[in-house]
Amino acid sequence: MNIGDYIRVTQEKSTWKGKIIQKKGNYLTLKLDSGYNAGILVDKRTKIKKISGSEVKKHKPIKFKTKFDKKKPSVSILSAGGTIASSIDYSTSAISAAHSAEEMVAAVPELANFANIKARKVVEEMSENMLPKHWKKIAKEIEKELKNSEGVVVTHGTDTLAYTSSMLSFILRNLNKPVVFTFAQKSSDRGSSDSAINLICSTITAIQKIPGIFVVGHGTVSDEFCLIHKGSKVRKMHSSQRDTFRSINDYPIGKVWPSGKIKLNYQKKISNEREFHIDDKIEEKVGIIKAYPGLDPKIIDWYTDNNYKGLVIEGTGLGHVNVKDKSLLPKIKRAIKKGVFVCMTTQTIYGRTNPYVYTPARKLLDAGVIYLEDMLTETAYTKLMWVLGHTKNEEKVRKMMLENLAGEFNPQLKPDQFLL
Amino acid sequence: MNIGDYIRVTQEKSTWKGKIIQKKGNYLTLKLDSGYNAGILVDKRTKIKKISGSEVKKHKPIKFKTKFDKKKPSVSILSAGGTIASSIDYSTSAISAAHSAEEMVAAVPELANFANIKARKVVEEMSENMLPKHWKKIAKEIEKELKNSEGVVVTHGTDTLAYTSSMLSFILRNLNKPVVFTFAQKSSDRGSSDSAINLICSTITAIQKIPGIFVVGHGTVSDEFCLIHKGSKVRKMHSSQRDTFRSINDYPIGKVWPSGKIKLNYQKKISNEREFHIDDKIEEKVGIIKAYPGLDPKIIDWYTDNNYKGLVIEGTGLGHVNVKDKSLLPKIKRAIKKGVFVCMTTQTIYGRTNPYVYTPARKLLDAGVIYLEDMLTETAYTKLMWVLGHTKNEEKVRKMMLENLAGEFNPQLKPDQFLL
Repeated sequence: MNIGDYIRVTQEKSTWKGKIIQKKGNYLTLKLDSGYNAGILVDKRTKIKKISGSEVKKHKPIKFKTKFDKKKPSVSILSAGGTIASSIDYSTSAISAAHSAEEMVAAVPELANFANIKARKVVEEMSENMLPKHWKKIAKEIEKELKNSEGVVVTHGTDTLAYTSSMLSFILRNLNKPVVFTFAQKSSDRGSSDSAINLICSTITAIQKIPGIFVVGHGTVSDEFCLIHKGSKVRKMHSSQRDTFRSINDYPIGKVWPSGKIKLNYQKKISNEREFHIDDKIEEKVGIIKAYPGLDPKIIDWYTDNNYKGLVIEGTGLGHVNVKDKSLLPKIKRAIKKGVFVCMTTQTIYGRTNPYVYTPARKLLDAGVIYLEDMLTETAYTKLMWVLGHTKNEEKVRKMMLENLAGEFNPQLKPDQFLL
Repeated sequence: MNIGDYIRVTQEKSTWKGKIIQKKGNYLTLKLDSGYNAGILVDKRTKIKKISGSEVKKHKPIKFKTKFDKKKPSVSILSAGGTIASSIDYSTSAISAAHSAEEMVAAVPELANFANIKARKVVEEMSENMLPKHWKKIAKEIEKELKNSEGVVVTHGTDTLAYTSSMLSFILRNLNKPVVFTFAQKSSDRGSSDSAINLICSTITAIQKIPGIFVVGHGTVSDEFCLIHKGSKVRKMHSSQRDTFRSINDYPIGKVWPSGKIKLNYQKKISNEREFHIDDKIEEKVGIIKAYPGLDPKIIDWYTDNNYKGLVIEGTGLGHVNVKDKSLLPKIKRAIKKGVFVCMTTQTIYGRTNPYVYTPARKLLDAGVIYLEDMLTETAYTKLMWVLGHTKNEEKVRKMMLENLAGEFNPQLKPDQFLL
């Protein structure tokens, strides 16, 4: 038996059918038709039979056909890679971002019930490899599509989706239409993929008259409904569950069912006063440091000495770092003196930073650290990049960082927003 | 009016009473009797009156009195600082870790219903300043107390409590009694403090015949009950809410009511085969790096070149980092070649890492990165320190890191453990 052979394995009462993707000693890994891997220890009881012909599952590309319906709104679906646009490469079992946008959309015929769909690929990347240049590219493609569409849906890998959605919340100025990010936790050619429901619910959201950047995805592990999250208040909270994206320190702004039903708890007037435009000036020399007991204070110097312009410290609790035996304070003071803007978020994820409760945090505040209230670290990072792309003036940076530009602050947290 | 004056402020229909702790321009900060601060903008409508005598709230230290009851078990309460052991310094409004352990315990007379309490201070530190030396000190003091007590309660600051509880899960070998960490989110002299319920529920937990390290604290924002979490599977998830500690990738092991009622979903036989002892050999040259789009790969070199022995990378999703245009892969390979042990956790917090789904993670795995399943970053960090304190042998480190030594792995995650 060789890698790539299609086989049936029987072991006592269990049977597996799939392609061999790995052999290690007596251990065999099969890629099952469902898309899942099965690891099998081959022993005396194991029966293996090579199969062929009609029993072998073929991966056929689907042709994209659509009829234009002038009564329906137009929605552009832009593929920016990720699992939703990927399929399993059956020769290596790896998932790769290789599906065409058309193919992905064609697999969900229900979309045509809601809108005339245009689909194309703009970035072909798993999201862990995304960089500022990809954010800018996606922004430009969204701008193009918004000219002729009621809304845009962007499919994106889950890993860094919240970084992209928050960054675009700042780059896309005065949005007057919805831009909806969506995703899949399982690739589209798996039986249990979540991509169809996510695409349908995103399309339904994209035809609403709500301006803004949103993330739409499963609300529970079942396929019942999706939640609509603000792009600047959302985070990937589970490595594999389909309901991974959660609103943090905020309620979701709505709920949408694949039937077309939608409930919105969100009102924002579309302003025609100021024109929609892209403003993608970004300072890339920004870093994130997570605080922890024993963190080496010299790491701050590394950023300072490497010409960094901004640092987001993900502090503990209300926004703390060690200020005693292994104090970060002198290093932070040095960084600020040399022109590094230092901001504080909290690694608790939920809740607000507050420098006024404990003395050590007041010292950080007095040193010039900008406490970012209830802002997510992801959003703090992209916002600091964006703000520093526009000004390095101390007063202006502080003012912009603390101004609610894209719903990134929630002035009044509610207890039931915790673990929502 | 001066800092420290006790005043009554009337503004239209509102009245505040408290001590002046800050004056800035027209802005006045009062420390109210409740312990909360009130910021007041003084204008023409504002009436201020200095008050004295019986109206001024006095902060009286409470004397600790107790009668030994030989029918009751003995519990030692060790104060390791934090908000629970702190009071507001009314001259500066800062919270400081200054209460005596006796005073803290004396304020909760209900404790005597359950056990004979001995209380003393072992560390006086806010938890953001905790270092390995404090962990070792706390371990030694627990060891002493366990000789004459049914169980030990340790009060600790919330910020880094999960680091301490996970580290002690490895340091305290073959525990045959309960060691319970508890805390307060509001200092004990505030009206709304959560410390009393937490102390009572922790004491009730400490007299159960369950060996292990636990964290006990509010289960909801109300004072109804506390949850009992495993010390290696718990995390501070909210910067200020009292129900901040949550079991991650696991169910709480029990629920406890201040009435004395307790429900345990946990069975662990107390083994008398191997003797309880402290094993506190720790390698302190271990760091945590959070991955994010644009992370500078050279940061890995900094750790390698500064003689670090271990690194925990908090990756995205299933345990990913950029392996393309700003690839961390060559730097990680170099680190491993130079003897740095590199482990992977996920910043989604919930869920499991899995290097087998996507090709980039397989490359990291092949390079020697140890994927830590569903282990928390906090626990991964303390465990790696502890393991590297015992061996630097490649095979042994890998084996120990992947062995379930203190319940830090959950082989089968359940969907309802997400955001529990």
